[in-house]
Amino acid sequence: MEMEKLVSLCKRRGFMFQSSEIYGGINGFWDYGPLGVELKRNIKDAWWRDMVTGHDDLAQLPGAPAAYEMTGLDCTIIMHPQVWKCSGHYDLFHDYMVDCRESKKRYRHDQIQGRWVEAKGKKIFATAGSDSESPEADLERQALKFFGMRSKNADELKWDGPLVSLTTVDDFEQVLGPDAKSLGSLTPPREFNLMFKTTIGALGGDSDAAFLRPETAQGIFVNFKNVVDSSRVRVPFGIAQVGKSFRNEITPRNFTFRSREFEQMEIEFFCHPDSSQDWYTYWRQRRFQWYQDMGLDKGKLILREHHPEELAHYSIGTADIEYAFPFLPEGEYGELEGIAHRGDFDLRSHMEGKLDPNTNPMTVELNEEGKPKHRGSGKDLSYRDDLSGERFVPHVVEPSAGADRAMLAFLCEAFTEDEAPDDKGKMQTRTLMKLHPRIAPIKAAIFPLVKKDGMPEMAQDIYRTLKKEWNVFYDEKGAVGRRYRRQDEAGTPFCITVDGDSMQDQTVTIRHRDTLDQWRVKADDLSDELRKLIG
Amino acid sequence: MEMEKLVSLCKRRGFMFQSSEIYGGINGFWDYGPLGVELKRNIKDAWWRDMVTGHDDLAQLPGAPAAYEMTGLDCTIIMHPQVWKCSGHYDLFHDYMVDCRESKKRYRHDQIQGRWVEAKGKKIFATAGSDSESPEADLERQALKFFGMRSKNADELKWDGPLVSLTTVDDFEQVLGPDAKSLGSLTPPREFNLMFKTTIGALGGDSDAAFLRPETAQGIFVNFKNVVDSSRVRVPFGIAQVGKSFRNEITPRNFTFRSREFEQMEIEFFCHPDSSQDWYTYWRQRRFQWYQDMGLDKGKLILREHHPEELAHYSIGTADIEYAFPFLPEGEYGELEGIAHRGDFDLRSHMEGKLDPNTNPMTVELNEEGKPKHRGSGKDLSYRDDLSGERFVPHVVEPSAGADRAMLAFLCEAFTEDEAPDDKGKMQTRTLMKLHPRIAPIKAAIFPLVKKDGMPEMAQDIYRTLKKEWNVFYDEKGAVGRRYRRQDEAGTPFCITVDGDSMQDQTVTIRHRDTLDQWRVKADDLSDELRKLIG
Repeated sequence: MEMEKLVSLCKRRGFMFQSSEIYGGINGFWDYGPLGVELKRNIKDAWWRDMVTGHDDLAQLPGAPAAYEMTGLDCTIIMHPQVWKCSGHYDLFHDYMVDCRESKKRYRHDQIQGRWVEAKGKKIFATAGSDSESPEADLERQALKFFGMRSKNADELKWDGPLVSLTTVDDFEQVLGPDAKSLGSLTPPREFNLMFKTTIGALGGDSDAAFLRPETAQGIFVNFKNVVDSSRVRVPFGIAQVGKSFRNEITPRNFTFRSREFEQMEIEFFCHPDSSQDWYTYWRQRRFQWYQDMGLDKGKLILREHHPEELAHYSIGTADIEYAFPFLPEGEYGELEGIAHRGDFDLRSHMEGKLDPNTNPMTVELNEEGKPKHRGSGKDLSYRDDLSGERFVPHVVEPSAGADRAMLAFLCEAFTEDEAPDDKGKMQTRTLMKLHPRIAPIKAAIFPLVKKDGMPEMAQDIYRTLKKEWNVFYDEKGAVGRRYRRQDEAGTPFCITVDGDSMQDQTVTIRHRDTLDQWRVKADDLSDELRKLIG
Repeated sequence: MEMEKLVSLCKRRGFMFQSSEIYGGINGFWDYGPLGVELKRNIKDAWWRDMVTGHDDLAQLPGAPAAYEMTGLDCTIIMHPQVWKCSGHYDLFHDYMVDCRESKKRYRHDQIQGRWVEAKGKKIFATAGSDSESPEADLERQALKFFGMRSKNADELKWDGPLVSLTTVDDFEQVLGPDAKSLGSLTPPREFNLMFKTTIGALGGDSDAAFLRPETAQGIFVNFKNVVDSSRVRVPFGIAQVGKSFRNEITPRNFTFRSREFEQMEIEFFCHPDSSQDWYTYWRQRRFQWYQDMGLDKGKLILREHHPEELAHYSIGTADIEYAFPFLPEGEYGELEGIAHRGDFDLRSHMEGKLDPNTNPMTVELNEEGKPKHRGSGKDLSYRDDLSGERFVPHVVEPSAGADRAMLAFLCEAFTEDEAPDDKGKMQTRTLMKLHPRIAPIKAAIFPLVKKDGMPEMAQDIYRTLKKEWNVFYDEKGAVGRRYRRQDEAGTPFCITVDGDSMQDQTVTIRHRDTLDQWRVKADDLSDELRKLIG
């Protein structure tokens, strides 16, 4: 599938638009149009229903170590800044950047690539930036220019070793920056925190600094005690949250895959330390299955266990659910969701070591393990099991999904071109979005075959009946074949047509978007039929 | 109703918590707990269904000038900064603040109140801040201290005129600040913009400044053309959006009523200029009715037309839907929703006068009407009616509702104390939340009367069946009377009890939260019965 076709369809049919497009757009921000907003709502609602309100608290689900409860929460995007100190984001959530003194440009340290090259008795490390479309060609051009050589003499350049990241180079005096003419123009790498910073209140001092949350998870941890105290849940249980998060990414890219403003669907699952490994296994499998249930091809999905050196500072184990997005090179996958075994890191961080109130919590130093010394709220976030009497700090398993990435994967998976007959029976290329009926923006479109003989009236009656339950669409304009095609592109799974026979026998045809099968049902049975079909 | 009781119930039962409470909270930010998140989701979903997906595009609704379409959108919180220049927020969305050079405190100009007072041949304007609980007493104390007098000589103070705002005073040299000891310590009022500011990208310069949206409306205006082009809607039509907005309020207060982070439910309704007045009338009435349909007492609601001098700079007419919140003084109302006739201000602002690309759009000056000179995108945002051939810039009617305020009003309205018999038949005070069944967090609770004789099994079967459609709750712990009371407080409209008779005749009792009526229905008919009851 060519990604450009999907991007074009998304804009043309109103799934997504670039944010602030009339002002030239804003990099890393995307708006959802009329079809997109319904699709995204349906994805979030399906997740909420499957994980929270529809969850059976009483039964042990297949693979689960025990029965468990699920509950929800909705926290603010701006929280007390100390939350981010304790979570580690204030000190550790950063990328390394290098500046070029010559070009005045800034790059991510790990995204500059280069090769060692020698000519005229001098050896340099020529580089290309992450936006380079053909790094090898750029490197050659850079090197030739630096050595004052013509392209016909390119074979005099002696390349040494493969293309590697700038992070492998210690001495920047030998580095030729991606947009520089002279050596050594890059500064040493510096930390750049990825949280968006703002200021609360009118004073504007440093003590009023606040951050847009980079994840929804922390809102759950700081409310753990509130939830336990107010809702009678017992460990093991999960708290779910859906909401926006923000990361000041240096290089947003790949459509909505890496955005600066995005929506997360996160669960923090609290359990006894002894069973946390089993719960980790359970959630990895349950969430992996969910994407398949929602229509992703198992052949394009992997469940990838992180290597120990990949793990975040708090994590005992993490697995990613990844999808073979079409914009990635063959064999590469992009993350849809991470399932992390966080141990008791978060609850402990937020409970331990209350500060002297005269200390500015944001300036506390890290200890040798990279964790801030003294920091938490001083509040007891341990849990007492009222049956066993045991008191413990629960372990946490965190299935953390990106709603926008799930949506992008569903769109990529859905995009299909096939051949189907047009109104005259001639085969034509057809574009359809094979979205799962549960998440399709429009569940059914209702057409009168022609605009006469009572067909519009009957179709409108059906439209009004179905609209009470679903988002449905009425269309009477143009040839019915063209109307089908418009709905195929919108991902509408079922088209219902009122024709001449309908007026006689009160039946209508249902056409299936993917198979093109058509069958007749009684108009009165349509709601039941659709309920079964949508699931 | 005492507000403290509601606030306490909201925390105790998990409707709302102060954000970051374990760190001492953060002023103006509130989290929604397990019950609160469901209530708020239901309010937003009811609004979306009533206004968007359930809207009948084909029929002319009662009071509406014509049939119309409704569609949705979901835009980013961070948009291109020029959006806020063109909307007027960058230049005009501010409060006036005064600083006190002596106390180093900052106050909102219009919230400092004071009175003229004379003693020892000198006349001053004594003041009290907005947080003063008894301004008259504070003023007296301030004046006595200033004049070096004892309280027994208070009758020597000659007060002149009533308590008035500092905004009525021109000469600050005669003003004694709320926390000052000497005259003239207050600075002249200065503008303080209410948008939260942040920075995008790694460079951090002024050109990378961005703002958290103070309203969702502008995202709709800048996408107007995208929506028209992608979804075949025809004027008149509306675009709806639900999402977070942020305002750096100087004095957040009244629980969630004035928060710094809040959620809006906004519609921009685009229509022909000739019929915009009729649409304005229609939307005022429709939205006013909606709050009543959702359970607010008509006697506590007013639809208040703004006086011409109250109108925002762009508005031709605005009406507020206001509710008699219990935390307000008798006879005062708080805004739930504003319905504004915005004319073509917004679309024109965003289309007209594209800038020279070398000009920084944020520094453009205002003209004598307070509108920025040259600013828009230069994109044509006019609309061509394909039937009449007429081209025009649509007028806009904007019903702009606050989801948090609606929720607060529903909670205030719902809070009720009455007398009901306990398990022993003795009358006891009962607290119940009379939430409309459509928005109640839990639709039904299912109880086995006792934990034996197959009752739990039958109750669990019912629980599982109902859970497919609604958020329902199973409870078998404790006396059934106490279980009822717990659900009453949570606002659960229906309790379903499986008792001894159920095992014989397969019927169960349904108990109505408000009337305490109980009646028996066949277990198999429960879904149909509940569907009717919830509506």
